[in-house]
Amino acid sequence: MSIQTSPENVAALKAALVGIVGASNVLTDREDVIAYGFDGTWYDNTPPLVVLPGSTAEVAAIHRYAFEHRIALTPRAMGSGLSGGSVPLAGSIVLAVARMNRILAIDDVDRVAVVQPGVITGDLQAAVERIGLFYPPDPSSLRQSGIGGNVAENAGGARCLKYGVTNDYVLALEVVLPESTVIRCGGRSVKNVTGYNLRSLFTGAEGTLGTITEVTLKLIGKPAHARTAMAIFDKLDDATEAVNAVLASGILPTSIELIDDVTARCIEANIPIGLPLDAEATLLFGTDGNDERVVEAETAGIAAIVKQRGAREVRLAADGAEAERMWNARRAISPSLARRRPNKLGEDIAVPRRAIPAMARRVREIAAKHNLEIPLFGHIGDGNLHPNILCDRRDRAEMERVTAAAREIFEVAVELGGTLSGEHGIGLLKKQFLELDLGPDTIALMRRIKDAIDPRGIMNPGKVFPDPGGRDAFRL
Amino acid sequence: MSIQTSPENVAALKAALVGIVGASNVLTDREDVIAYGFDGTWYDNTPPLVVLPGSTAEVAAIHRYAFEHRIALTPRAMGSGLSGGSVPLAGSIVLAVARMNRILAIDDVDRVAVVQPGVITGDLQAAVERIGLFYPPDPSSLRQSGIGGNVAENAGGARCLKYGVTNDYVLALEVVLPESTVIRCGGRSVKNVTGYNLRSLFTGAEGTLGTITEVTLKLIGKPAHARTAMAIFDKLDDATEAVNAVLASGILPTSIELIDDVTARCIEANIPIGLPLDAEATLLFGTDGNDERVVEAETAGIAAIVKQRGAREVRLAADGAEAERMWNARRAISPSLARRRPNKLGEDIAVPRRAIPAMARRVREIAAKHNLEIPLFGHIGDGNLHPNILCDRRDRAEMERVTAAAREIFEVAVELGGTLSGEHGIGLLKKQFLELDLGPDTIALMRRIKDAIDPRGIMNPGKVFPDPGGRDAFRL
Repeated sequence: MSIQTSPENVAALKAALVGIVGASNVLTDREDVIAYGFDGTWYDNTPPLVVLPGSTAEVAAIHRYAFEHRIALTPRAMGSGLSGGSVPLAGSIVLAVARMNRILAIDDVDRVAVVQPGVITGDLQAAVERIGLFYPPDPSSLRQSGIGGNVAENAGGARCLKYGVTNDYVLALEVVLPESTVIRCGGRSVKNVTGYNLRSLFTGAEGTLGTITEVTLKLIGKPAHARTAMAIFDKLDDATEAVNAVLASGILPTSIELIDDVTARCIEANIPIGLPLDAEATLLFGTDGNDERVVEAETAGIAAIVKQRGAREVRLAADGAEAERMWNARRAISPSLARRRPNKLGEDIAVPRRAIPAMARRVREIAAKHNLEIPLFGHIGDGNLHPNILCDRRDRAEMERVTAAAREIFEVAVELGGTLSGEHGIGLLKKQFLELDLGPDTIALMRRIKDAIDPRGIMNPGKVFPDPGGRDAFRL
Repeated sequence: MSIQTSPENVAALKAALVGIVGASNVLTDREDVIAYGFDGTWYDNTPPLVVLPGSTAEVAAIHRYAFEHRIALTPRAMGSGLSGGSVPLAGSIVLAVARMNRILAIDDVDRVAVVQPGVITGDLQAAVERIGLFYPPDPSSLRQSGIGGNVAENAGGARCLKYGVTNDYVLALEVVLPESTVIRCGGRSVKNVTGYNLRSLFTGAEGTLGTITEVTLKLIGKPAHARTAMAIFDKLDDATEAVNAVLASGILPTSIELIDDVTARCIEANIPIGLPLDAEATLLFGTDGNDERVVEAETAGIAAIVKQRGAREVRLAADGAEAERMWNARRAISPSLARRRPNKLGEDIAVPRRAIPAMARRVREIAAKHNLEIPLFGHIGDGNLHPNILCDRRDRAEMERVTAAAREIFEVAVELGGTLSGEHGIGLLKKQFLELDLGPDTIALMRRIKDAIDPRGIMNPGKVFPDPGGRDAFRL
């Protein structure tokens, strides 16, 4: 299944791939390939070789060679993933689509964008907004294909509550199947039920079924007005109950983001923004729409509800600059946590609305029980929370507690009717917990689909599916 | 693959199934089973036996027996499909879920409904609206699993422009796989990217991969206000151009429905509603929202745009009763066409926005060329049109022209970047045209998935996949 990484084998493979993409697009020197061994997690596994195709035809030629010679491929876009999905395992070489970064078309009548998979989401968002269109979703559910970039991912993720997830915006894909066949699924029409839904299958496959080489995305009109409000709560329980009170009112914000006190302390220690350190929870609310009066009314409605539910203070952003400062607090979370402790294990659970208050409480109880710092933040409006377990991977005793706490958080999420991952995917980080969520029969069915599409198992080995008998998913 | 329908074989099968569901839920008398041989199309093929399970466990037991004895199963909900998907072929027995018609839960905090597949969509919609919630989408993309019923399908379909299609609302499914394993895909959280996206795969599989036994649907808040407007155009071209002008303005109606002059004449001949007979096109616009002033402003905006684009008259519904009369025109289409000529071949093409005017023109040209009446109507706002070719199946010469015209309409839709089916699925009606849209490689991939999940080919044989060498898809 995997390349034997003896120098002779790598040399032969390199020669073949140079014939496809040219010498400058095949990397084997250690200093060149090392950057392709990690993503946004703590995993790191340097590949023997990285190939950078420039076109679908080159991707197909690489697949043809790899299939024939049973060489494992790990497709990779910008490496911004948060589940280890693009970290190459089992001797896999990296098929990096970074050079395939062109926006091929933006059509303002059809309201679609056709992009190569290496396009940075933020670049696409800027390009469509220049002509009054909008690409709102979180790119992270389109993991393997990328259109990646972390800033864009965070900004986009925060809008999921109103605008949904990436999968809702994928109208069509071009995919290179393991053995090199190029297929298209979907088209430019917004409605399409012709044949099996392969778009959703490949979008969520994390590179285990093929390499995505082109994506057609649905665009919407850019909302003319947006407002931001920040609400500060002494009690986390009041904040989580307020979230459901706002949603029950009929107001649909673009986003409701939670920053708990542990998270706020990390942010303030790193970038003093003015978050209160004595409040258990801060909520950020975004609203948008084409009618300014409605956006104002919704924001006022949110303020009234959260005050009634125990917010001690509500700040309405007076203008775009103040709104930007508030969202900067959200964007500062990840770098701030990285400064607090050497490592973090980031989770991505999603629970039904009813379970949001209980989930937040249980994470805090688990943190206390295992004597760990677990900052809690994320897209609480859609039940998608990112508890991050801070730790030091060199501390074996602490890592035992981290592993136990991580499993308990997953168990609670599933017990409450939720799931392991709302956005980031399973990759490597969560694969040993997959059965906890899906059960053995659903995984067996996934395996049948995997084997039917990738019979030689060359696509992104070691991902998504649990290792039989594997226990500790948090090491390589 | 299929049951040999000798009396002895049917008797043995009947005895086995009676052991599972009881004697009253196994039908073999001709007068009982005949109703299970057709759907909303002109296909009709009486099954040798119909079994009516009452629970998932009974469905699984039926699958276990059928798998073991290689008996083909055609799952069927309410038989309201418009592509022949639930018409049993190849000796298949019918597994009818009509008795599994309970709404299992409606949760107003989680905003989900959990239903059995035999629930009528209209019943679900009424139940959730009683508590201020809303299930907007067209049920027709959830074909095999039903929650069927034609009225609901039409009403729902008309709202797709704003609210999307059924697939966007399916949070979870319970599915009985061919060999009888019961799996669950998805949960109650609105975000979920754990494992392969099997929800979308089974939702769009038209009963060829398993039997859906439970569906968890996302609900939204019921909009407080709605308005309806009717715009009358002398020229079809002006109407289709006006559709794109409205969409470009940033207004997102719930629906934009087209009724062309041929359709209007059929309606007026059947149920005089007051549609103009000398106008080439009538458009119906629906708007909704929580802010009455915004809904009014959007409706006024639509009226201004369509007048500027050549509408000779715009009627705003003064109240709910008048709106209801306007929508009754839309609902009257299908029964009215049925009275015009003995048969109709209903298509369900969907094209990108840019192609809407060209598609409408080309349908009229094809009608003229083949000397056929092809009423054109449908959800023009999302490019989903239902050209219905009126005919008499006993007239062989006419049927030759129908077949040629149908193929040409499909070809034009694909040429314009669209697809064979926006809502109704492929079933039997469109299977011989599938390759025209998807190409052989995508169909080959679908076949690999089908064979992996249903290795004995017992699920809904003869559907979706084209018959090798088959030519005329419009006969049995």
